[in-house]
Amino acid sequence: MTDVLATWINGVEGGSVPADDRGLQYGDGVFETLLVRNGVPRFLAAHRDRMRRGLAQLGIRFLAGEALDAEIARAAGMAPPLAVLKIIVTRGSAARRGYRSPETHEARRIMSLWPTAPLANDLIERGVDLDIARLRVPTPSPFAGLKHLNRLENVMASTEASADEFFDALLMDTGEQLVSGTSCNVFLVKAGQLLTPPVDRAGVAGVMRAVVLREARRLAIGAHEQQLTMSDLIGADGIFITNARIGVVPVRRVREHVFAMTDVVSRLRAHIEALDA
Amino acid sequence: MTDVLATWINGVEGGSVPADDRGLQYGDGVFETLLVRNGVPRFLAAHRDRMRRGLAQLGIRFLAGEALDAEIARAAGMAPPLAVLKIIVTRGSAARRGYRSPETHEARRIMSLWPTAPLANDLIERGVDLDIARLRVPTPSPFAGLKHLNRLENVMASTEASADEFFDALLMDTGEQLVSGTSCNVFLVKAGQLLTPPVDRAGVAGVMRAVVLREARRLAIGAHEQQLTMSDLIGADGIFITNARIGVVPVRRVREHVFAMTDVVSRLRAHIEALDA
Repeated sequence: MTDVLATWINGVEGGSVPADDRGLQYGDGVFETLLVRNGVPRFLAAHRDRMRRGLAQLGIRFLAGEALDAEIARAAGMAPPLAVLKIIVTRGSAARRGYRSPETHEARRIMSLWPTAPLANDLIERGVDLDIARLRVPTPSPFAGLKHLNRLENVMASTEASADEFFDALLMDTGEQLVSGTSCNVFLVKAGQLLTPPVDRAGVAGVMRAVVLREARRLAIGAHEQQLTMSDLIGADGIFITNARIGVVPVRRVREHVFAMTDVVSRLRAHIEALDA
Repeated sequence: MTDVLATWINGVEGGSVPADDRGLQYGDGVFETLLVRNGVPRFLAAHRDRMRRGLAQLGIRFLAGEALDAEIARAAGMAPPLAVLKIIVTRGSAARRGYRSPETHEARRIMSLWPTAPLANDLIERGVDLDIARLRVPTPSPFAGLKHLNRLENVMASTEASADEFFDALLMDTGEQLVSGTSCNVFLVKAGQLLTPPVDRAGVAGVMRAVVLREARRLAIGAHEQQLTMSDLIGADGIFITNARIGVVPVRRVREHVFAMTDVVSRLRAHIEALDA
Protein backbone atom coordinates (compact mmCIF):
# COMPACT_ATOMS: atom_id res chain seq x y z
CA MET A 1 0.00 0.00 0.00
CA THR A 2 2.93 2.33 0.29
CA ASP A 3 4.52 1.89 -3.13
CA VAL A 4 4.51 4.83 -5.50
CA LEU A 5 2.05 4.42 -8.39
CA ALA A 6 3.77 6.75 -10.82
CA THR A 7 6.37 9.49 -11.00
CA TRP A 8 6.65 12.21 -13.62
CA ILE A 9 9.58 14.55 -14.21
CA ASN A 10 8.45 17.67 -16.08
CA GLY A 11 5.38 15.70 -17.11
CA VAL A 12 7.29 12.74 -18.50
CA GLU A 13 6.85 9.47 -16.66
CA GLY A 14 10.11 8.32 -15.13
CA GLY A 15 11.63 7.98 -11.74
CA SER A 16 14.98 9.73 -11.90
CA VAL A 17 16.33 13.25 -11.67
CA PRO A 18 19.68 14.65 -12.83
CA ALA A 19 22.20 14.55 -9.99
CA ASP A 20 22.93 18.25 -10.51
CA ASP A 21 19.37 19.24 -9.57
CA ARG A 22 19.55 22.03 -7.02
CA GLY A 23 16.77 20.39 -5.04
CA LEU A 24 19.16 17.55 -4.28
CA GLN A 25 22.29 19.71 -4.02
CA TYR A 26 20.85 22.37 -1.69
CA GLY A 27 17.17 21.68 -0.96
CA ASP A 28 16.54 24.57 -3.35
CA GLY A 29 12.82 24.23 -4.02
CA VAL A 30 9.34 23.80 -2.60
CA PHE A 31 6.75 21.05 -2.45
CA GLU A 32 3.06 20.38 -1.98
CA THR A 33 1.25 17.29 -0.77
CA LEU A 34 -2.35 17.05 -2.01
CA LEU A 35 -5.03 14.56 -1.16
CA VAL A 36 -6.80 13.22 -4.24
CA ARG A 37 -10.24 11.90 -3.27
CA ASN A 38 -12.43 10.22 -5.87
CA GLY A 39 -10.34 11.79 -8.58
CA VAL A 40 -10.55 15.32 -7.15
CA PRO A 41 -7.37 17.07 -5.90
CA ARG A 42 -8.74 18.71 -2.77
CA PHE A 43 -8.08 22.41 -2.10
CA LEU A 44 -6.08 22.60 -5.32
CA ALA A 45 -6.29 26.40 -5.63
CA ALA A 46 -4.89 26.85 -2.12
CA HIS A 47 -2.01 24.44 -2.80
CA ARG A 48 -1.26 26.19 -6.08
CA ASP A 49 -1.27 29.60 -4.39
CA ARG A 50 1.05 28.52 -1.60
CA MET A 51 3.45 26.94 -4.09
CA ARG A 52 3.53 30.14 -6.15
CA ARG A 53 4.20 32.25 -3.05
CA GLY A 54 7.05 29.95 -2.09
CA LEU A 55 8.58 30.00 -5.57
CA ALA A 56 8.29 33.79 -5.68
CA GLN A 57 9.97 34.19 -2.29
CA LEU A 58 12.82 31.94 -3.39
CA GLY A 59 13.11 33.73 -6.73
CA ILE A 60 12.48 30.55 -8.70
CA ARG A 61 11.03 31.31 -12.11
CA PHE A 62 8.26 28.83 -12.78
CA LEU A 63 6.71 29.15 -16.22
CA ALA A 64 5.03 25.75 -16.39
CA GLY A 65 1.93 26.48 -14.32
CA GLU A 66 -0.46 25.46 -17.07
CA ALA A 67 1.47 22.30 -17.87
CA LEU A 68 1.51 21.42 -14.17
CA ASP A 69 -2.24 21.93 -13.92
CA ALA A 70 -2.77 19.53 -16.82
CA GLU A 71 -0.41 17.01 -15.24
CA ILE A 72 -2.25 17.21 -11.92
CA ALA A 73 -5.55 16.61 -13.71
CA ARG A 74 -4.09 13.64 -15.55
CA ALA A 75 -2.66 12.12 -12.34
CA ALA A 76 -5.95 12.70 -10.49
CA GLY A 77 -7.79 10.94 -13.30
CA MET A 78 -5.76 7.78 -12.82
CA ALA A 79 -5.62 7.88 -9.01
CA PRO A 80 -7.29 5.27 -6.80
CA PRO A 81 -10.23 6.50 -4.66
CA LEU A 82 -7.82 7.91 -2.07
CA ALA A 83 -4.33 9.01 -3.08
CA VAL A 84 -1.60 11.48 -2.24
CA LEU A 85 -0.05 13.60 -4.96
CA LYS A 86 3.32 15.05 -4.04
CA ILE A 87 4.63 17.86 -6.23
CA ILE A 88 8.17 19.17 -5.91
CA VAL A 89 9.39 22.19 -7.87
CA THR A 90 13.14 22.85 -7.74
CA ARG A 91 15.33 25.56 -9.22
CA GLY A 92 16.42 22.92 -11.73
CA SER A 93 19.86 21.80 -12.78
CA ALA A 94 22.93 23.75 -11.85
CA ALA A 95 25.05 24.55 -14.89
CA ARG A 96 27.87 25.30 -12.46
CA ARG A 97 28.76 24.61 -8.84
CA GLY A 98 27.92 27.10 -6.11
CA TYR A 99 25.02 28.27 -4.01
CA ARG A 100 24.19 31.39 -5.99
CA SER A 101 21.05 31.08 -8.08
CA PRO A 102 21.92 31.18 -11.78
CA GLU A 103 20.24 34.13 -13.50
CA THR A 104 18.79 31.78 -16.05
CA HIS A 105 17.43 28.59 -14.61
CA GLU A 106 14.73 26.21 -15.65
CA ALA A 107 12.62 24.99 -12.75
CA ARG A 108 12.04 21.23 -12.61
CA ARG A 109 8.76 19.67 -11.47
CA ILE A 110 8.74 16.23 -9.91
CA MET A 111 5.34 14.69 -9.27
CA SER A 112 4.58 11.36 -7.61
CA LEU A 113 1.29 9.64 -6.96
CA TRP A 114 0.85 7.38 -3.93
CA PRO A 115 -2.08 5.30 -2.74
CA THR A 116 -3.17 6.09 0.78
CA ALA A 117 -5.67 4.71 3.27
CA PRO A 118 -8.16 6.75 5.28
CA LEU A 119 -7.15 7.23 8.90
CA ALA A 120 -8.55 4.39 11.05
CA ASN A 121 -11.93 5.26 12.53
CA ASP A 122 -10.86 4.47 16.07
CA LEU A 123 -8.01 6.99 15.80
CA ILE A 124 -10.49 9.63 14.68
CA GLU A 125 -12.88 8.76 17.51
CA ARG A 126 -10.48 8.37 20.38
CA GLY A 127 -7.75 10.75 19.11
CA VAL A 128 -4.06 10.30 18.33
CA ASP A 129 -1.09 10.37 20.70
CA LEU A 130 1.72 12.90 20.23
CA ASP A 131 5.27 13.13 21.50
CA ILE A 132 7.15 16.39 22.03
CA ALA A 133 10.41 16.51 20.10
CA ARG A 134 13.59 17.29 22.04
CA LEU A 135 14.85 19.19 18.98
CA ARG A 136 14.11 22.93 19.19
CA VAL A 137 13.43 24.92 16.02
CA PRO A 138 15.53 28.11 15.83
CA THR A 139 13.59 31.27 15.02
CA PRO A 140 12.88 33.52 13.27
CA SER A 141 13.38 31.43 10.14
CA PRO A 142 13.85 33.49 6.95
CA PHE A 143 11.62 30.88 5.28
CA ALA A 144 8.84 30.66 7.87
CA GLY A 145 5.54 29.54 6.39
CA LEU A 146 7.07 28.10 3.22
CA LYS A 147 6.86 24.41 2.39
CA HIS A 148 10.47 24.33 1.19
CA LEU A 149 12.74 21.34 0.76
CA ASN A 150 14.99 21.98 3.79
CA ARG A 151 13.30 19.47 6.07
CA LEU A 152 16.06 18.04 8.26
CA GLU A 153 14.37 19.40 11.39
CA ASN A 154 11.19 17.50 10.51
CA VAL A 155 13.16 14.36 9.68
CA MET A 156 15.14 14.35 12.91
CA ALA A 157 12.23 15.35 15.16
CA SER A 158 9.90 12.71 13.72
CA THR A 159 12.62 10.07 13.87
CA GLU A 160 13.27 10.59 17.58
CA ALA A 161 9.60 9.83 18.44
CA SER A 162 8.66 6.16 18.80
CA ALA A 163 6.55 5.16 15.80
CA ASP A 164 4.81 2.48 17.84
CA GLU A 165 3.73 4.87 20.55
CA PHE A 166 3.19 8.18 18.80
CA PHE A 167 1.37 9.36 15.68
CA ASP A 168 3.63 12.43 15.39
CA ALA A 169 5.76 14.76 17.52
CA LEU A 170 5.13 18.40 18.37
CA LEU A 171 7.86 20.92 17.64
CA MET A 172 8.72 23.74 20.04
CA ASP A 173 10.98 26.63 19.03
CA THR A 174 14.10 27.78 20.84
CA GLY A 175 11.95 30.28 22.74
CA GLU A 176 9.76 27.39 24.00
CA GLN A 177 6.83 28.44 21.84
CA LEU A 178 4.73 25.79 20.15
CA VAL A 179 5.33 25.59 16.38
CA SER A 180 3.44 22.60 14.91
CA GLY A 181 3.78 18.85 14.54
CA THR A 182 6.52 17.55 12.28
CA SER A 183 3.98 16.89 9.52
CA CYS A 184 0.88 18.76 10.68
CA ASN A 185 -0.32 22.02 12.15
CA VAL A 186 -1.74 22.10 15.65
CA PHE A 187 -4.75 23.83 17.23
CA LEU A 188 -5.81 24.19 20.87
CA VAL A 189 -9.46 24.43 21.89
CA LYS A 190 -9.91 26.85 24.80
CA ALA A 191 -13.32 28.04 26.02
CA GLY A 192 -14.83 27.10 22.67
CA GLN A 193 -12.27 29.10 20.69
CA LEU A 194 -9.53 27.73 18.41
CA LEU A 195 -5.94 28.88 18.89
CA THR A 196 -3.03 28.06 16.59
CA PRO A 197 0.55 29.37 16.47
CA PRO A 198 1.31 32.02 13.84
CA VAL A 199 3.61 30.84 11.02
CA ASP A 200 5.60 34.02 10.50
CA ARG A 201 8.61 32.91 12.58
CA ALA A 202 8.61 29.14 12.09
CA GLY A 203 6.50 26.31 10.71
CA VAL A 204 4.55 25.82 7.54
CA ALA A 205 1.41 27.71 6.50
CA GLY A 206 -0.58 24.50 6.08
CA VAL A 207 -3.39 24.44 3.55
CA MET A 208 -5.65 22.51 5.96
CA ARG A 209 -4.71 25.00 8.70
CA ALA A 210 -6.00 27.82 6.47
CA VAL A 211 -9.15 25.83 5.67
CA VAL A 212 -9.81 25.39 9.40
CA LEU A 213 -9.36 29.11 10.10
CA ARG A 214 -11.72 29.96 7.21
CA GLU A 215 -14.38 27.36 7.97
CA ALA A 216 -14.36 28.06 11.73
CA ARG A 217 -15.45 31.59 10.91
CA ARG A 218 -18.24 30.25 8.69
CA LEU A 219 -19.39 28.07 11.59
CA ALA A 220 -19.19 31.05 13.97
CA ILE A 221 -16.39 29.40 15.94
CA GLY A 222 -13.76 31.88 17.12
CA ALA A 223 -10.33 31.08 15.68
CA HIS A 224 -7.13 33.02 16.31
CA GLU A 225 -3.42 32.91 15.68
CA GLN A 226 -1.54 33.25 18.94
CA GLN A 227 1.85 32.39 20.42
CA LEU A 228 1.34 29.31 22.58
CA THR A 229 3.52 27.73 25.26
CA MET A 230 3.63 24.28 26.77
CA SER A 231 1.49 25.50 29.66
CA ASP A 232 -1.14 26.81 27.21
CA LEU A 233 -1.12 23.37 25.66
CA ILE A 234 -1.47 21.55 28.98
CA GLY A 235 -4.30 23.89 29.96
CA ALA A 236 -6.27 23.42 26.74
CA ASP A 237 -9.75 21.88 26.75
CA GLY A 238 -8.85 19.93 23.64
CA ILE A 239 -6.22 19.68 20.90
CA PHE A 240 -6.34 18.72 17.27
CA ILE A 241 -3.94 18.46 14.38
CA THR A 242 -4.43 19.11 10.69
CA ASN A 243 -2.86 18.35 7.37
CA ALA A 244 -4.00 17.83 3.80
CA ARG A 245 -3.99 14.05 4.06
CA ILE A 246 -5.71 13.45 7.40
CA GLY A 247 -7.86 16.59 7.62
CA VAL A 248 -8.86 17.48 11.21
CA VAL A 249 -7.86 14.85 13.79
CA PRO A 250 -8.33 15.09 17.58
CA VAL A 251 -5.43 14.48 19.95
CA ARG A 252 -5.95 12.10 22.87
CA ARG A 253 -2.70 12.82 24.66
CA VAL A 254 0.57 14.69 24.38
CA ARG A 255 3.09 12.55 26.24
CA GLU A 256 1.47 12.10 29.68
CA HIS A 257 -1.08 14.90 29.29
CA VAL A 258 -4.51 13.55 28.38
CA PHE A 259 -7.14 15.65 26.63
CA ALA A 260 -10.89 15.38 26.28
CA MET A 261 -12.63 14.93 22.96
CA THR A 262 -14.57 18.12 22.22
CA ASP A 263 -17.68 18.57 20.11
CA VAL A 264 -16.14 21.46 18.24
CA VAL A 265 -13.46 19.20 16.77
CA SER A 266 -15.86 16.52 15.53
CA ARG A 267 -18.14 19.23 14.16
CA LEU A 268 -15.25 20.90 12.31
CA ARG A 269 -14.01 17.57 10.99
CA ALA A 270 -17.40 16.56 9.64
CA HIS A 271 -17.90 19.97 8.06
CA ILE A 272 -14.49 20.06 6.37
CA GLU A 273 -14.58 16.42 5.22
CA ALA A 274 -17.51 17.39 2.99
CA LEU A 275 -15.49 20.08 1.21
CA ASP A 276 -13.21 19.82 -1.81
CA ALA A 277 -12.25 23.48 -2.16
CA MET B 1 35.58 25.39 -17.52
CA THR B 2 32.53 24.86 -15.33
CA ASP B 3 31.12 21.68 -16.82
CA VAL B 4 31.17 18.56 -14.72
CA LEU B 5 33.77 15.99 -15.85
CA ALA B 6 32.06 12.93 -14.41
CA THR B 7 29.40 11.88 -11.94
CA TRP B 8 29.13 8.57 -10.11
CA ILE B 9 26.16 7.21 -8.18
CA ASN B 10 27.29 4.55 -5.70
CA GLY B 11 30.44 4.23 -7.75
CA VAL B 12 28.71 3.72 -11.08
CA GLU B 13 29.18 6.45 -13.65
CA GLY B 14 25.89 8.13 -14.46
CA GLY B 15 24.23 11.43 -13.85
CA SER B 16 20.84 10.65 -12.37
CA VAL B 17 19.36 9.80 -9.02
CA PRO B 18 16.01 8.16 -8.16
CA ALA B 19 13.37 10.81 -7.54
CA ASP B 20 12.54 9.23 -4.18
CA ASP B 21 16.02 9.95 -2.80
CA ARG B 22 15.63 11.57 0.60
CA GLY B 23 18.38 14.04 -0.27
CA LEU B 24 16.03 15.51 -2.87
CA GLN B 25 12.84 15.01 -0.87
CA TYR B 26 14.08 16.51 2.42
CA GLY B 27 17.73 17.53 2.14
CA ASP B 28 18.38 14.43 4.24
CA GLY B 29 22.12 14.01 3.87
CA VAL B 30 25.56 15.61 4.03
CA PHE B 31 28.23 16.65 1.58
CA GLU B 32 31.93 17.40 1.23
CA THR B 33 33.77 19.53 -1.28
CA LEU B 34 37.42 18.53 -1.70
CA LEU B 35 40.14 20.17 -3.71
CA VAL B 36 42.10 17.69 -5.81
CA ARG B 37 45.53 19.09 -6.66
CA ASN B 38 47.88 17.19 -8.91
CA GLY B 39 45.86 14.06 -8.28
CA VAL B 40 45.90 14.41 -4.50
CA PRO B 41 42.60 14.98 -2.60
CA ARG B 42 43.77 17.54 -0.05
CA PHE B 43 42.95 17.07 3.64
CA LEU B 44 41.10 13.86 2.81
CA ALA B 45 41.19 12.48 6.34
CA ALA B 46 39.63 15.65 7.73
CA HIS B 47 36.88 15.61 5.10
CA ARG B 48 36.22 11.94 5.79
CA ASP B 49 36.03 12.56 9.54
CA ARG B 50 33.62 15.45 9.21
CA MET B 51 31.39 13.47 6.87
CA ARG B 52 31.30 10.55 9.33
CA ARG B 53 30.43 12.87 12.21
CA GLY B 54 27.60 14.38 10.16
CA LEU B 55 26.25 10.99 9.13
CA ALA B 56 26.41 9.78 12.74
CA GLN B 57 24.57 12.84 14.03
CA LEU B 58 21.83 12.37 11.43
CA GLY B 59 21.63 8.64 12.16
CA ILE B 60 22.47 7.70 8.57
CA ARG B 61 24.05 4.27 8.38
CA PHE B 62 26.93 4.46 5.94
CA LEU B 63 28.61 1.13 5.31
CA ALA B 64 30.41 2.02 2.09
CA GLY B 65 33.40 3.88 3.53
CA GLU B 66 35.96 1.64 1.84
CA ALA B 67 34.15 1.74 -1.48
CA LEU B 68 33.97 5.53 -1.25
CA ASP B 69 37.71 5.74 -0.50
CA ALA B 70 38.43 3.69 -3.63
CA GLU B 71 36.09 5.86 -5.69
CA ILE B 72 37.77 9.03 -4.43
CA ALA B 73 41.16 7.60 -5.39
CA ARG B 74 39.90 6.68 -8.84
CA ALA B 75 38.37 10.13 -9.40
CA ALA B 76 41.54 11.83 -8.17
CA GLY B 77 43.57 9.74 -10.59
CA MET B 78 41.63 11.04 -13.57
CA ALA B 79 41.33 14.64 -12.36
CA PRO B 80 42.97 17.59 -14.14
CA PRO B 81 45.77 19.36 -12.21
CA LEU B 82 43.19 21.34 -10.22
CA ALA B 83 39.72 19.93 -9.61
CA VAL B 84 36.89 19.91 -7.13
CA LEU B 85 35.38 16.64 -5.98
CA LYS B 86 31.92 16.99 -4.47
CA ILE B 87 30.63 14.04 -2.48
CA ILE B 88 27.04 13.84 -1.29
CA VAL B 89 25.80 11.05 0.96
CA THR B 90 22.03 10.86 1.46
CA ARG B 91 19.81 8.57 3.52
CA GLY B 92 18.93 6.92 0.21
CA SER B 93 15.59 6.11 -1.33
CA ALA B 94 12.42 6.32 0.67
CA ALA B 95 10.40 3.12 0.43
CA ARG B 96 7.45 5.12 1.74
CA ARG B 97 6.44 8.74 2.12
CA GLY B 98 7.05 10.64 5.33
CA TYR B 99 9.81 12.41 7.20
CA ARG B 100 10.62 9.65 9.63
CA SER B 101 13.88 7.85 8.86
CA PRO B 102 13.18 4.24 7.84
CA GLU B 103 14.85 1.82 10.23
CA THR B 104 16.47 0.12 7.31
CA HIS B 105 17.87 2.47 4.74
CA GLU B 106 20.68 2.27 2.28
CA ALA B 107 22.70 5.47 2.07
CA ARG B 108 23.39 6.72 -1.45
CA ARG B 109 26.66 8.38 -2.46
CA ILE B 110 26.74 10.87 -5.31
CA MET B 111 30.15 12.04 -6.42
CA SER B 112 30.95 14.61 -9.08
CA LEU B 113 34.27 15.87 -10.41
CA TRP B 114 34.63 19.43 -11.65
CA PRO B 115 37.57 21.27 -13.14
CA THR B 116 38.47 24.44 -11.33
CA ALA B 117 40.91 27.30 -11.79
CA PRO B 118 43.23 28.73 -9.17
CA LEU B 119 42.06 32.00 -7.71
CA ALA B 120 43.44 34.92 -9.75
CA ASN B 121 46.73 36.21 -8.33
CA ASP B 122 45.53 39.77 -8.12
CA LEU B 123 42.61 38.67 -5.90
CA ILE B 124 45.04 36.94 -3.59
CA GLU B 125 47.32 39.97 -3.49
CA ARG B 126 44.79 42.75 -3.15
CA GLY B 127 42.06 40.74 -1.36
CA VAL B 128 38.44 40.00 -2.19
CA ASP B 129 35.35 42.14 -1.57
CA LEU B 130 32.48 40.85 0.57
CA ASP B 131 28.89 41.88 1.02
CA ILE B 132 26.86 41.36 4.21
CA ALA B 133 23.69 39.39 3.61
CA ARG B 134 20.41 40.90 4.79
CA LEU B 135 19.21 37.39 5.65
CA ARG B 136 19.82 36.52 9.31
CA VAL B 137 20.59 32.94 10.34
CA PRO B 138 18.38 31.75 13.23
CA THR B 139 20.26 30.12 16.12
CA PRO B 140 20.95 27.79 17.79
CA SER B 141 20.68 25.41 14.85
CA PRO B 142 20.29 21.74 15.86
CA PHE B 143 22.68 20.98 12.98
CA ALA B 144 25.34 23.62 13.65
CA GLY B 145 28.75 22.65 12.32
CA LEU B 146 27.41 20.00 9.93
CA LYS B 147 27.79 20.28 6.19
CA HIS B 148 24.25 19.04 5.59
CA LEU B 149 22.09 19.43 2.50
CA ASN B 150 19.67 22.06 3.90
CA ARG B 151 21.33 25.03 2.23
CA LEU B 152 18.53 27.46 1.37
CA GLU B 153 20.04 30.09 3.67
CA ASN B 154 23.31 29.92 1.75
CA VAL B 155 21.50 29.97 -1.59
CA MET B 156 19.38 32.99 -0.76
CA ALA B 157 22.14 34.94 1.00
CA SER B 158 24.61 34.42 -1.84
CA THR B 159 21.99 35.24 -4.44
CA GLU B 160 21.17 38.62 -2.91
CA ALA B 161 24.80 39.77 -3.22
CA SER B 162 25.86 41.24 -6.56
CA ALA B 163 28.12 38.73 -8.30
CA ASP B 164 29.86 41.52 -10.21
CA GLU B 165 30.75 43.46 -7.10
CA PHE B 166 31.25 40.81 -4.41
CA PHE B 167 33.16 37.54 -4.10
CA ASP B 168 30.81 36.30 -1.36
CA ALA B 169 28.52 37.59 1.40
CA LEU B 170 28.98 37.36 5.16
CA LEU B 171 26.20 35.82 7.23
CA MET B 172 25.13 37.27 10.59
CA ASP B 173 22.83 35.38 12.95
CA THR B 174 19.58 36.67 14.43
CA GLY B 175 21.58 37.84 17.48
CA GLU B 176 23.79 39.95 15.17
CA GLN B 177 26.78 37.68 15.69
CA LEU B 178 29.06 36.91 12.76
CA VAL B 179 28.63 33.34 11.44
CA SER B 180 30.69 32.88 8.26
CA GLY B 181 30.50 33.62 4.55
CA THR B 182 27.91 31.75 2.52
CA SER B 183 30.59 29.39 1.20
CA CYS B 184 33.56 30.06 3.47
CA ASN B 185 34.58 30.55 7.07
CA VAL B 186 35.85 33.92 8.22
CA PHE B 187 38.73 35.03 10.46
CA LEU B 188 39.59 38.42 11.90
CA VAL B 189 43.17 39.47 12.61
CA LYS B 190 43.42 41.57 15.77
CA ALA B 191 46.72 42.48 17.42
CA GLY B 192 48.42 39.61 15.62
CA GLN B 193 45.87 37.05 16.83
CA LEU B 194 43.30 35.16 14.72
CA LEU B 195 39.65 35.18 15.81
CA THR B 196 36.88 33.12 14.23
CA PRO B 197 33.27 32.49 15.30
CA PRO B 198 32.54 29.18 17.04
CA VAL B 199 30.42 26.76 15.00
CA ASP B 200 28.34 25.26 17.79
CA ARG B 201 25.28 27.46 17.21
CA ALA B 202 25.43 28.10 13.45
CA GLY B 203 27.69 27.71 10.45
CA VAL B 204 29.81 24.87 9.12
CA ALA B 205 32.92 23.42 10.77
CA GLY B 206 35.03 24.03 7.68
CA VAL B 207 37.96 21.72 7.01
CA MET B 208 40.16 24.66 5.96
CA ARG B 209 39.02 26.53 9.10
CA ALA B 210 40.31 23.61 11.22
CA VAL B 211 43.56 23.54 9.22
CA VAL B 212 44.07 27.26 9.90
CA LEU B 213 43.47 26.82 13.64
CA ARG B 214 45.92 23.89 13.72
CA GLU B 215 48.63 25.47 11.58
CA ALA B 216 48.40 28.84 13.33
CA ARG B 217 49.43 27.07 16.53
CA ARG B 218 52.35 25.43 14.72
CA LEU B 219 53.44 28.88 13.53
CA ALA B 220 53.01 30.28 17.07
CA ILE B 221 50.20 32.55 15.92
CA GLY B 222 47.43 32.86 18.52
CA ALA B 223 44.10 31.61 17.17
CA HIS B 224 40.82 31.54 19.07
CA GLU B 225 37.14 30.84 18.62
CA GLN B 226 35.11 33.80 19.81
CA GLN B 227 31.68 35.34 19.28
CA LEU B 228 32.21 38.33 16.98
CA THR B 229 29.97 41.27 16.15
CA MET B 230 29.91 43.72 13.28
CA SER B 231 31.87 46.20 15.39
CA ASP B 232 34.55 43.57 16.05
CA LEU B 233 34.71 43.09 12.31
CA ILE B 234 34.97 46.80 11.55
CA GLY B 235 37.67 47.14 14.20
CA ALA B 236 39.81 44.28 12.90
CA ASP B 237 43.32 44.85 11.59
CA GLY B 238 42.64 42.43 8.77
CA ILE B 239 40.17 39.80 7.63
CA PHE B 240 40.48 36.61 5.67
CA ILE B 241 38.22 33.83 4.47
CA THR B 242 38.86 30.13 4.05
CA ASN B 243 37.46 27.13 2.27
CA ALA B 244 38.79 23.93 0.79
CA ARG B 245 38.88 25.27 -2.75
CA ILE B 246 40.46 28.69 -2.26
CA GLY B 247 42.51 28.05 0.90
CA VAL B 248 43.32 31.26 2.82
CA VAL B 249 42.29 34.46 1.02
CA PRO B 250 42.56 38.01 2.37
CA VAL B 251 39.59 40.37 2.34
CA ARG B 252 40.04 43.88 0.93
CA ARG B 253 36.71 45.27 1.99
CA VAL B 254 33.37 44.35 3.56
CA ARG B 255 30.85 46.66 1.93
CA GLU B 256 32.32 50.12 2.57
CA HIS B 257 34.79 49.02 5.26
CA VAL B 258 38.31 48.68 3.86
CA PHE B 259 40.94 46.47 5.48
CA ALA B 260 44.71 46.36 5.29
CA MET B 261 46.60 43.36 3.98
CA THR B 262 48.47 41.79 6.90
CA ASP B 263 51.66 39.75 6.85
CA VAL B 264 50.12 37.05 9.00
CA VAL B 265 47.57 36.22 6.29
CA SER B 266 50.10 35.90 3.48
CA ARG B 267 52.37 33.88 5.78
CA LEU B 268 49.52 31.52 6.70
CA ARG B 269 48.45 31.20 3.10
CA ALA B 270 51.93 30.32 1.87
CA HIS B 271 52.40 27.82 4.70
CA ILE B 272 49.07 26.07 4.14
CA GLU B 273 49.33 26.04 0.34
CA ALA B 274 52.32 23.74 0.75
CA LEU B 275 50.29 21.16 2.71
CA ASP B 276 48.16 18.28 1.47
CA ALA B 277 47.10 16.84 4.84
